[in-house]
Amino acid sequence: MNTRIGILGYGNLGRGVECAIRQNADMELSAVFTRRDPENVSILTEGVAVCPLAKVMEWKDKIDVIILCGGSATDLPQQTPEYAKYFHVVDSFDTHARIPEHFANVDLTAKESGHIAIISAGWDPGMFSLNRLYAGAILPEGRDYTFWGRGVSQGHSDAIRRVEGVKNAKQYTVPVKEALDAVRAGENPELTTRQKHTRECFVVLKEGADAAKVEEEIKTMPNYFADYDTTVHFISEEELLKNHSGIPHGGFVIRSGVTGWEKENRHVIEYQLKLDSNPEFTSSVLVACARAAHRLAREGGAGAKTLFDLPPAYLSAMSGEELRAKLL
Amino acid sequence: MNTRIGILGYGNLGRGVECAIRQNADMELSAVFTRRDPENVSILTEGVAVCPLAKVMEWKDKIDVIILCGGSATDLPQQTPEYAKYFHVVDSFDTHARIPEHFANVDLTAKESGHIAIISAGWDPGMFSLNRLYAGAILPEGRDYTFWGRGVSQGHSDAIRRVEGVKNAKQYTVPVKEALDAVRAGENPELTTRQKHTRECFVVLKEGADAAKVEEEIKTMPNYFADYDTTVHFISEEELLKNHSGIPHGGFVIRSGVTGWEKENRHVIEYQLKLDSNPEFTSSVLVACARAAHRLAREGGAGAKTLFDLPPAYLSAMSGEELRAKLL
Repeated sequence: MNTRIGILGYGNLGRGVECAIRQNADMELSAVFTRRDPENVSILTEGVAVCPLAKVMEWKDKIDVIILCGGSATDLPQQTPEYAKYFHVVDSFDTHARIPEHFANVDLTAKESGHIAIISAGWDPGMFSLNRLYAGAILPEGRDYTFWGRGVSQGHSDAIRRVEGVKNAKQYTVPVKEALDAVRAGENPELTTRQKHTRECFVVLKEGADAAKVEEEIKTMPNYFADYDTTVHFISEEELLKNHSGIPHGGFVIRSGVTGWEKENRHVIEYQLKLDSNPEFTSSVLVACARAAHRLAREGGAGAKTLFDLPPAYLSAMSGEELRAKLL
Repeated sequence: MNTRIGILGYGNLGRGVECAIRQNADMELSAVFTRRDPENVSILTEGVAVCPLAKVMEWKDKIDVIILCGGSATDLPQQTPEYAKYFHVVDSFDTHARIPEHFANVDLTAKESGHIAIISAGWDPGMFSLNRLYAGAILPEGRDYTFWGRGVSQGHSDAIRRVEGVKNAKQYTVPVKEALDAVRAGENPELTTRQKHTRECFVVLKEGADAAKVEEEIKTMPNYFADYDTTVHFISEEELLKNHSGIPHGGFVIRSGVTGWEKENRHVIEYQLKLDSNPEFTSSVLVACARAAHRLAREGGAGAKTLFDLPPAYLSAMSGEELRAKLL
């Protein structure tokens, strides 16, 4: 039995989900829901309806799982608890500090209405979180390190774009090689924010803007750049579009820990991602989670879940027998 | 409530489990069971009983989970289905080709008697398998590679020791750097057995043995060495003990796959282990699985399980709230 998916919100993430559905034979796209005028939204899959958000309830019996593809700042805190009243849902809520609150809100409506709601799926939160959990459970005496990059930070790029005189910008988060090497060697270094990552900015100026002033304003911006070694490159709009229009990302989760009666043996567990497209990878995780949501739902489960709660086999299209024979 | 563990079999793995229990505040060692004369078995933990195997049934109400630390060739195929009749059990059965059969045998007795039996826990099968599953579920169009090493292969070391004229030996499995680099770069190379790993042997000869003959016999040994580029170093027994008495191991699971409407974006997922002690790392996974077994048992679960079936949170000593707040 296929899983019929609804996509709610059709930006980079929604389009990524649409692409990922095409790569999974047991998944099918039923409809895309948008706040925009559906006339102006053109999707990739032929023959699939684009509907206004207001019509979503009409699809209640034609959709197994809705993947919520809105933003974490304002969309998901409202949408996930709301749609979990009527559908099994999956989201990629990624404001780490607010996850407990989001989980509680979603759990309430999902449990009351008997739906499964998988939240915070993606790679961080998501696959990186899973690797922190597994590594910590195996090596309780040890230390975790998470490095991000090299990749585009949307939030930091947006922050630069808000600086006066900036026409366009892309910001890359870059892990510091020396820090990464020390962690991998099991040295358990104490690392400051500045020692772990640098920030590299590619900025297009508006005509007549003062480059020195813009650079100074970026480098001293609190929270975003002040605590980092930041490099600013001024480039043309053409160069930005040509060389910096992708959305690559990735990073590393490393745990180094000890075992043995006298803690004499050291072990290093490393998980690494190199992603050409951050939203498409996140979307691929969301679709695997939609499969798990559908399975949990068929078993009669309800409530908010995260990747921490999902038996890994539920994410895979293979049967238990196949998984044991081929992958174990 | 602590998980009271029994260790059955006290070799490298059993001792590793004993050490791992000490690192987990919610685990306690109740007893060690051995086929040897308990008088001759001295364990590390003070005040814990060492008992003959025949007495294990007397511990039925004093043990929550037995970790079976025997070998996969002859011990576990018999022991796991047998002890699953009376106890919740965990094993590290690692003969990949026979896992489906072992699973079926264990599932039968565990289900009949209402016990949880987690089989094939460790790192391969185990954490490597999990990473193959997750990566394949996220990137269905892609390719998996598993590299082992640099590390000691017990089976290959044993095979060398059976060669006439050999007094002692250690064999290291070594991944080929060029192959690893090509895989990491997402090149999806076709790799033969020979192109993926080399084998490095450190051999101590018996007095009067013919080195050239021994080397030839090792290098042409079918299944073990004939398909690999093998290097043989003859060293003294002192050197072997001094430089090659550890049991390090590790390796890499890498999946490279594509996403996007035209499969235009590439992603590489890599999981890497560097282990000073192969048995102690395996033991650490076994103890985390004992925690999961105890939880599943308290929920009334029964039957054979693998890491594929365990919600990751069940492996961790942290509560769901803690995990979401700290690791998600």
